[in-house]
Amino acid sequence: MKAVVLLSGGLDSTTLLYLLKGQCDEVKALTIVYGQKHVREVIAAGQTCKKLGVEWLLLNFTDLKKVVGESALVSKNAEVPEGSYTDETMKQTVVPNRNMILLSVAAAWASTLKFDIIAYAAHAGDHTIYPDCRKPFFTSAETTINIGNWLDKPMKVLVPFSDMPKTDILKLGISIGADYSLTWTCYKGDLRPCGKCGACVERAEAFRVAGFKDPLLEEVIA
Amino acid sequence: MKAVVLLSGGLDSTTLLYLLKGQCDEVKALTIVYGQKHVREVIAAGQTCKKLGVEWLLLNFTDLKKVVGESALVSKNAEVPEGSYTDETMKQTVVPNRNMILLSVAAAWASTLKFDIIAYAAHAGDHTIYPDCRKPFFTSAETTINIGNWLDKPMKVLVPFSDMPKTDILKLGISIGADYSLTWTCYKGDLRPCGKCGACVERAEAFRVAGFKDPLLEEVIA
Repeated sequence: MKAVVLLSGGLDSTTLLYLLKGQCDEVKALTIVYGQKHVREVIAAGQTCKKLGVEWLLLNFTDLKKVVGESALVSKNAEVPEGSYTDETMKQTVVPNRNMILLSVAAAWASTLKFDIIAYAAHAGDHTIYPDCRKPFFTSAETTINIGNWLDKPMKVLVPFSDMPKTDILKLGISIGADYSLTWTCYKGDLRPCGKCGACVERAEAFRVAGFKDPLLEEVIA
Repeated sequence: MKAVVLLSGGLDSTTLLYLLKGQCDEVKALTIVYGQKHVREVIAAGQTCKKLGVEWLLLNFTDLKKVVGESALVSKNAEVPEGSYTDETMKQTVVPNRNMILLSVAAAWASTLKFDIIAYAAHAGDHTIYPDCRKPFFTSAETTINIGNWLDKPMKVLVPFSDMPKTDILKLGISIGADYSLTWTCYKGDLRPCGKCGACVERAEAFRVAGFKDPLLEEVIA
């Protein structure tokens, strides 16, 4: 098994990279800058790859900002919503067709490398609002990739956290030594996590329920 | 019907833009620079949109060069093959997963615009080698887009030239007034068409069989 891991630099995809680093014959990480405000997560992605000795490819697709409208994740005109996610605030963070774009680029790279896996860290909490974080989407994307390319063997779109809540991902990561000080979650573009956006609130809740301290907050606040 | 047309600046997609400009309530054109040597086609795309009064969006995705390997269309290390296409020379021009990437970006824009069509100008001659130019691929991509997004109405991936040879596309285009002096076909990066690469040979053959002179060649050679 040789895998391209889509690595945002957040908690979930960082855990996935640690997991597959231990399970696959070869792993490479792909980070795509799509115009997100929280580009700080990209730095975290690079730091994790350096620590793990994993080849890291960073692609500049900032022009995507021009097609995804007023998503709060990219637009200057839309504030990142604060507080626990509701259906409405989560919808404001939808970037249209984002995961199909990410997977299609990962598939191009995996095809070139003759790798047989593309791994994506969607988790159970993403399902409610993001239709491109659900299993039927990944199954369909996998079919499209396999129909559309000459491949030596079938390409697998691996989404192992699909049914796991964030707390379980966190527990798994800690059990395999994931360094969460080298991750970034906050959706705002500041140097410190805001602690108020949906992403920050969700992360804090996962650490609280799992019974661990967030090393990122300790480091940043210290 | 409101359509985003993927416009390369070549003969087929230019014809498609003319066709849909006459059939749809609204049309916008999307051109994506993916690192192709024949960036001259991009200028042609812009000229056609200006002539037709169609909004044109040009996206810079040149970083794609880093993931598509040694395709002759993008790599400095691979020569564009000359002569009529054979299976082997056509394979050298494959850009892995290119059309899934193009469609997924077009889908993001169409979703943002609340348009219901993405149009792509794959034609019968593309089928032999490019698996992402065949109907099952487009059907699967359409399914993936519709599963992965919140859409007011279903998104259609329209590929009207799918069963048409290039000569028929050309005849159609001429019948509706397409200006082929504002197109570009040659895969090499020079200021004039080389006349030798598979794309040039295929274009010349289409004009010969259709019984028309190629206004681009007349203009360039004059």
